[in-house]
Amino acid sequence: MPAGPDATALQVLRHLVDHGPLSRPDLQQGTGLARATTSAITNDLLRRGLLAEIDTPRSGQRGRPVTLLDLDDTHYAVTGIEIGFDKILASVHTLQGRELLRVERPAEADAVNPRALLRRAAMVLQETLDLVEDDGRELLGVGVSVAGLVDAASGTIKYAPSLGWRDIALSEGVAEALGGRAPVLIDTTANYAALAELRERRRNGGTEASLVYLTGTYGISAGIVAGGNLWRGERGMAGEVGHLIVEADGLRCVCGRNGCLDTRAGMSAILDAALGAAKGVRRTSRPLTLSAGVDQVASLAQSGDQGVVEALAEAGRWLGRGAALVCAMLDPHSVVLGGHYARLAPWLLVPARGAFRESLLLPGDDREQLQVSALGAWAPVEGAALAVLLSYADGTRAFPSSN
Amino acid sequence: MPAGPDATALQVLRHLVDHGPLSRPDLQQGTGLARATTSAITNDLLRRGLLAEIDTPRSGQRGRPVTLLDLDDTHYAVTGIEIGFDKILASVHTLQGRELLRVERPAEADAVNPRALLRRAAMVLQETLDLVEDDGRELLGVGVSVAGLVDAASGTIKYAPSLGWRDIALSEGVAEALGGRAPVLIDTTANYAALAELRERRRNGGTEASLVYLTGTYGISAGIVAGGNLWRGERGMAGEVGHLIVEADGLRCVCGRNGCLDTRAGMSAILDAALGAAKGVRRTSRPLTLSAGVDQVASLAQSGDQGVVEALAEAGRWLGRGAALVCAMLDPHSVVLGGHYARLAPWLLVPARGAFRESLLLPGDDREQLQVSALGAWAPVEGAALAVLLSYADGTRAFPSSN
Repeated sequence: MPAGPDATALQVLRHLVDHGPLSRPDLQQGTGLARATTSAITNDLLRRGLLAEIDTPRSGQRGRPVTLLDLDDTHYAVTGIEIGFDKILASVHTLQGRELLRVERPAEADAVNPRALLRRAAMVLQETLDLVEDDGRELLGVGVSVAGLVDAASGTIKYAPSLGWRDIALSEGVAEALGGRAPVLIDTTANYAALAELRERRRNGGTEASLVYLTGTYGISAGIVAGGNLWRGERGMAGEVGHLIVEADGLRCVCGRNGCLDTRAGMSAILDAALGAAKGVRRTSRPLTLSAGVDQVASLAQSGDQGVVEALAEAGRWLGRGAALVCAMLDPHSVVLGGHYARLAPWLLVPARGAFRESLLLPGDDREQLQVSALGAWAPVEGAALAVLLSYADGTRAFPSSN
Repeated sequence: MPAGPDATALQVLRHLVDHGPLSRPDLQQGTGLARATTSAITNDLLRRGLLAEIDTPRSGQRGRPVTLLDLDDTHYAVTGIEIGFDKILASVHTLQGRELLRVERPAEADAVNPRALLRRAAMVLQETLDLVEDDGRELLGVGVSVAGLVDAASGTIKYAPSLGWRDIALSEGVAEALGGRAPVLIDTTANYAALAELRERRRNGGTEASLVYLTGTYGISAGIVAGGNLWRGERGMAGEVGHLIVEADGLRCVCGRNGCLDTRAGMSAILDAALGAAKGVRRTSRPLTLSAGVDQVASLAQSGDQGVVEALAEAGRWLGRGAALVCAMLDPHSVVLGGHYARLAPWLLVPARGAFRESLLLPGDDREQLQVSALGAWAPVEGAALAVLLSYADGTRAFPSSN
């Protein structure tokens, strides 16, 4: 006998992840399941400690109390961690998404050496484990976010340009650091951030089935949601938007080809162009990390440096053209500028939207398709924690048998 | 009380569309539903005439007879029709996909006038209706395939360049021609062909969750399957691969922009280039229709006209670069060259695969991602008929209450 919930129970769990808390009738209507099926499933999940009832006094018809269902908030925890060149970010969440802990540590000195960076990540994870233990919770897993090409199935980083890593068995390393205490998932910053962005929209009542989240890391990667689910590609290689060729005889790209979008609108190229155009910034005095570079560019633009402002506008126009390519191919509800793009949006967004509209094949409807993420730097971490939960709600992993 | 099957019953139907016929245990395992649920659902669907039992004598363990389940093959019919500039194609199928009738009629003289072309289509549909009636079947619906931008929700052709149509309420026109005897779906040639291609692969044991089908009509449109389902885009505008800009100062495109992939690798551009390079073909004597043009180019290439062969090779290289853009964005299992591309594949494919591999960011695995469709010109029609069935299996429409 399989211990985990069957396919219909997973539908219920998944629906609550996206839309909870919900009344029983709303849950039944939302899943499209028969009333008797919904009732049997929710009772079983309540008994197993995966769901909880929430009494909301006097909010129903005629002021009667309504009992809502949601994922249980007391027994389990999920952890997300982003291992970046600049920083390691981690957070611990309940199944309802409530944040229990947030840790931020610098990483620079260790980044070039995978072993040293993993040791640093292990120390951060230990902090999260301590909290989960003190809180008497069971850790369902750790989601690890890295900017680069990730083979999620084998848990390997194929190529992370910002870290200079190739073929690193990251899952294994993190699982070792955890002493096997919880399963480990890995995926790209772009995919995890897209998951977090989608949940944010669902929780705010959005019903869109699609979005494309563009990371503002060294290069542009896309997290693609289509039909309500993340689309990673058949080999996990979808979303290489930074390497769409946008100029036949364009600039040389790190990938060895010419004219990739990254050479114009990747964050690394944007900083080079902006600092190159800035008054009185010497090449040798440029900041080492992406975050520091973004800070410097933002403050130069803020102070009215026209060279910097124009360089950002030009980058914005290329970003808009790139977003239009994404729309021609996928027609998502929104293209969302994330990460450091959000920070530089005051200077990027207007020119980007102008070029975007000019490059569209058909005029869009009234709503603005090119948007800026409101989630900020923590989106990938929150998405990584959410992905752990989703791996249970889609049946990839089985919940512990009872509590 | 809703008359249609609930969400779990629809899962069973959808699974049989893709994988039937199946034994009860295989059906249960494939859907992930509990045994009791599967059993209750199949009994109900059998009672309602939507499923049928097929006895396969002596093929089980120890040569015992095995009873397989599949969609019913006797009560219902679904029809697909492709309304093209050159031709009208239609076919009638059982729910198991068995073809009952195939009709092909020339359309050229009528194509410029939507009313005349609709009258012609109505005559073709009447032939299919007569057969369905003679056969004592109930028609579940008609799927209408058109090359162009289609708003499936409202049943409107927004823009069909090959027909010169803009904002034509096609669904309405076809429904009128049918005298309201069956629901009408419309969608693009690319989407319907992609559906047919996916089913063909599933029926041959393929397990891929994704493919991108590129139409060889006037321009290039893509039918995108991701996560096992068609992705039409949030406004139904996904797949405009022909209008990905591949050259900064490229040729002028009909859309008013420069450098679109269509100007290099759309079928119309390919024929212009090939016939322009051919020996002894005068501009004034070029064939009027796309099919006739493809025939002429194929026979010139066959006869060894070097100008034509080189023009096709150059077009193939652009097609390969375009396919690489699709892969960078979506990483599908396969990019499939359909329609007239299949006819010209002997000259297009090798150069296309060469340029495709050179343009990929990461080398693919061993399997060849760029493929040629085996379905030929009937793929959109078969997909249109299948789409009607899927609209019942996904709950969009409710089956007639009983038989």
